[in-house]
Amino acid sequence: MSCTSKISVLQEARKAYQPKLPGALKSGKFAVKELSVVEPPRDADEIKALFPNTFGKPMVQIVAGDGKLSTDAMNVGVVLSGGPAPGGHNCIAGLYDALMAVNPASKLYGFLSGPKGVFTGKYVEITAEMVDDYRNTGGFDMIGSGRDKIETDEQVLGCVKVLKELGCKALVIIGGDDSNTNGAVLAEAFAAKGEKLQVIGLPKTIDGDMRNEHIEASFGFDTAAKTFSQLVSNVCRDSASARKYYHFIKLMGRSASHVALEVALQVQPTITLISEEIQERNLSLNDIVNEICRVIAERAAKGLNYGVIVIPEGLLQFVNEFKSFFKDLEDLMRQHIDAIESMPDKDKYPFVTRHLPPTSSALYASLPVNLQDVLLRTDSHGNLTVSQLETEVFLIDCVKKKLDEMAKIGSFQGKFAAQPHFFGYEGRCGQPSNFDADYCYSLGYAGVQLIRAGLTGYTVSAQNLDAPADEWVLGGIPVSSMLHIEIRKGQPKPVIEKCLVDLKGGPFQAFVTCRDEWKAVDAYKFVGPVQYWGPAEVCDAPTITLELEGKKRKAAK
Amino acid sequence: MSCTSKISVLQEARKAYQPKLPGALKSGKFAVKELSVVEPPRDADEIKALFPNTFGKPMVQIVAGDGKLSTDAMNVGVVLSGGPAPGGHNCIAGLYDALMAVNPASKLYGFLSGPKGVFTGKYVEITAEMVDDYRNTGGFDMIGSGRDKIETDEQVLGCVKVLKELGCKALVIIGGDDSNTNGAVLAEAFAAKGEKLQVIGLPKTIDGDMRNEHIEASFGFDTAAKTFSQLVSNVCRDSASARKYYHFIKLMGRSASHVALEVALQVQPTITLISEEIQERNLSLNDIVNEICRVIAERAAKGLNYGVIVIPEGLLQFVNEFKSFFKDLEDLMRQHIDAIESMPDKDKYPFVTRHLPPTSSALYASLPVNLQDVLLRTDSHGNLTVSQLETEVFLIDCVKKKLDEMAKIGSFQGKFAAQPHFFGYEGRCGQPSNFDADYCYSLGYAGVQLIRAGLTGYTVSAQNLDAPADEWVLGGIPVSSMLHIEIRKGQPKPVIEKCLVDLKGGPFQAFVTCRDEWKAVDAYKFVGPVQYWGPAEVCDAPTITLELEGKKRKAAK
Repeated sequence: MSCTSKISVLQEARKAYQPKLPGALKSGKFAVKELSVVEPPRDADEIKALFPNTFGKPMVQIVAGDGKLSTDAMNVGVVLSGGPAPGGHNCIAGLYDALMAVNPASKLYGFLSGPKGVFTGKYVEITAEMVDDYRNTGGFDMIGSGRDKIETDEQVLGCVKVLKELGCKALVIIGGDDSNTNGAVLAEAFAAKGEKLQVIGLPKTIDGDMRNEHIEASFGFDTAAKTFSQLVSNVCRDSASARKYYHFIKLMGRSASHVALEVALQVQPTITLISEEIQERNLSLNDIVNEICRVIAERAAKGLNYGVIVIPEGLLQFVNEFKSFFKDLEDLMRQHIDAIESMPDKDKYPFVTRHLPPTSSALYASLPVNLQDVLLRTDSHGNLTVSQLETEVFLIDCVKKKLDEMAKIGSFQGKFAAQPHFFGYEGRCGQPSNFDADYCYSLGYAGVQLIRAGLTGYTVSAQNLDAPADEWVLGGIPVSSMLHIEIRKGQPKPVIEKCLVDLKGGPFQAFVTCRDEWKAVDAYKFVGPVQYWGPAEVCDAPTITLELEGKKRKAAK
Repeated sequence: MSCTSKISVLQEARKAYQPKLPGALKSGKFAVKELSVVEPPRDADEIKALFPNTFGKPMVQIVAGDGKLSTDAMNVGVVLSGGPAPGGHNCIAGLYDALMAVNPASKLYGFLSGPKGVFTGKYVEITAEMVDDYRNTGGFDMIGSGRDKIETDEQVLGCVKVLKELGCKALVIIGGDDSNTNGAVLAEAFAAKGEKLQVIGLPKTIDGDMRNEHIEASFGFDTAAKTFSQLVSNVCRDSASARKYYHFIKLMGRSASHVALEVALQVQPTITLISEEIQERNLSLNDIVNEICRVIAERAAKGLNYGVIVIPEGLLQFVNEFKSFFKDLEDLMRQHIDAIESMPDKDKYPFVTRHLPPTSSALYASLPVNLQDVLLRTDSHGNLTVSQLETEVFLIDCVKKKLDEMAKIGSFQGKFAAQPHFFGYEGRCGQPSNFDADYCYSLGYAGVQLIRAGLTGYTVSAQNLDAPADEWVLGGIPVSSMLHIEIRKGQPKPVIEKCLVDLKGGPFQAFVTCRDEWKAVDAYKFVGPVQYWGPAEVCDAPTITLELEGKKRKAAK
């Protein structure tokens, strides 16, 4: 056994998998057909003012047919941005294969460790051998990723220099909402400088929050949600076998609850918290804890002293007393970040307590120390590092206290023992499911057609994803159509509107219809691990989220 | 979508899977051939004195042929004992199908929630529909499990009464070493009382520590180790993509390091700690921490500030200063358990500190409070609840302190950030792999033949498991052959010798050959999720542990 043989038997077998392309992209000759112009959801004037050169362009659709797109060799750069998501390597494979199909003299350059690699000129030429080694694999390690943004004029000029030296026609940014926004800003900056450099984005994120009616899914969500479903499902089976614990499982997903909702629909655990509903109904932490305890007490009365509770990572950001708290904290951090970072730990927490407004100060003071510490950290995009908040441990603590009170007055007569879990890193880098492998490959392949059509400041769009891959509709949507203005670090910034769970949508409504039964009786579904071979209904199915949204869309027509 | 439809598409498809049986068990007519008598590894006289009626019986092998075993209808009871392991339901399916093949008037009774269900008479009759609903599924929820032992004469008499009322010829106990020992004690007690009731055991445990040359694998190890390998592999890919964190991953496995070693061989993470080696070489906590820091510093010098460190759950039990500490703690707990349990928390830890011998007292006082608290809990078998010890968090703490010291003197010039993980509940209840589905079914099927042969106090044995299922050799080994005397809660008790990692064995030697390279460069293998369909080398392969042990065995002949 070689010490550094990097290939598992599964990886070896998976190399042979040929991703499925939509019919239009299999045809060999494409046209990029213009559709309508879509206004941004709001703040149109401000957006137009920020993007004078790239605003007001139409959506497009890639169709079979001879659009007389250029067959000249093209040099294209690609960069991965932000957290990993399964299938990113297939985006690169799709880009590569599409470029070679147009003209084998084309070159694909991969910038290393994220956007910083573009303006510092750290890159590799992506060869056929490299692509073959990474087809259908998870992770972003082919060229690495990073969270830096391309912001300053110096950095923009750095990008221009590097891209022109390499003879690049376009840069493809594979990332989430912040990265695609950054791509739009870069496209505008290039255009403003009179450069012909194009920027195209591919929609990534396991969180499922970068999407809308034109981009029905962000890649990686399928694999991550199915992997988390496998694990939650296993814990449900364990819970029902040992009959001892309530498992409080926090799931990565940043702000929105799409991942938790998909897991709820796949697995049917006892309780799933949906942050968007909590916000809509203005529920407090007490309300949430009381409901959990009500369910625990009712199950205890039936002799069921176990269960599984799924918690979306972003929960506390949607709970009223925490919402203003997080804002006050962000404001304080921005004002005092240097002072706070230079203090010893034991001085930080009293300092923060003293400088917060009264209600937020009281809340901060009431938290356990490790939570106080974690709350003082933010990433480079100004987002709280929510995945570090041990919300699941905090909730167990609150629930235990409440049940103790209930026991004293006789309204809880059971046993409560809990296990906290956080599923995140296990699910971000799995081998992509067949869906994600196909989807990512198609996104990359479509991206090249948008470049050939001379477009810039676009993200590849995708519709009809609940149908078999052959029927998917790929195209492009101007990023500026998806932007609005938000305050970030105290400044108004253009951002892509995050897609939160639609409480009137198919998935959430299906959840609401059934959740009370799932609280009362065990209705767990045992999902099992993602399968790559076997019956199509097992290995080629999309998420339940996509299925239900598709059904609703067709019913509405 | 039905609110309580319990079947996922995978589970539906998996119902059709027909487990593979060894050739001898496919033949329809069996003989149970006597082999030699095997002496217990030591304490033979004490064991003989404890098991006068059941000691000194021969091992047996099930072969094709007409052994003229009885074809009378048989009533058999089955009980699940201890933590869940993937495939337990297939043991029951194998028992059921074998009974029906002998005589369709036979009955299988499942006792509920573990051994306590036997002497309290809580049971269900296992029907064809029930079995079909649970074929090839994970978990133990078909009839539930429990950790109670059948110890007192009253409990033994309770078992006799219940089993005789049901007309049972035999009881099958599906459990690990403690449960199989309990089965032997029960068999002896029945025989001593002149009862014809037989007791047969099936060897379970995901930990892989109930095995020897006659029982080559304990069921559930295959699926659990492969599931953990999937998750660790995903984290490795994440680590190499984000390039930010050292992931310290503790794995369930109780005492032995079989699970961690299998994961090391499957995934090739940066560092894997093997407890048995640490004990053999008498390494201290400092030695372990220093080695981890040495590797981190060397990787940092190459710009690699990330990696994955796998930690077996039982690690601290094998570290010299902790070994005597755990013993002193167990002694103290036994003496003062009532006093300690009635004290408020804030009094417990000083009490323990005061009452421990000096070295152990100093060690206890140096631990963080949550670790001090967790150490005061034991299960009903007298084992420390090791899965509650946050060893991974403790190690991160120690490593960070050491790296800070090294940074001050310039011998570490990198960045260290860590993420702790504990994989356990995610892996205990997965759908069994093809190997476990086949193995468990075969164990159950073989168990019925041992009952027909009139044997009692036996555990089903299994050899040649690295070969295809058709070539497996199933039989039986008297439990008393596997027992020796150990002190448990201060009393000498017969126990099955735990199988620890053999430092001269094939798996560990393969690990030693390669581990230094895996520390220096990234050599991760991306294992992916367990597959049920696809190429045989993907979905029917045994563990690497079994493969290497098999190779070594054949080479030795």
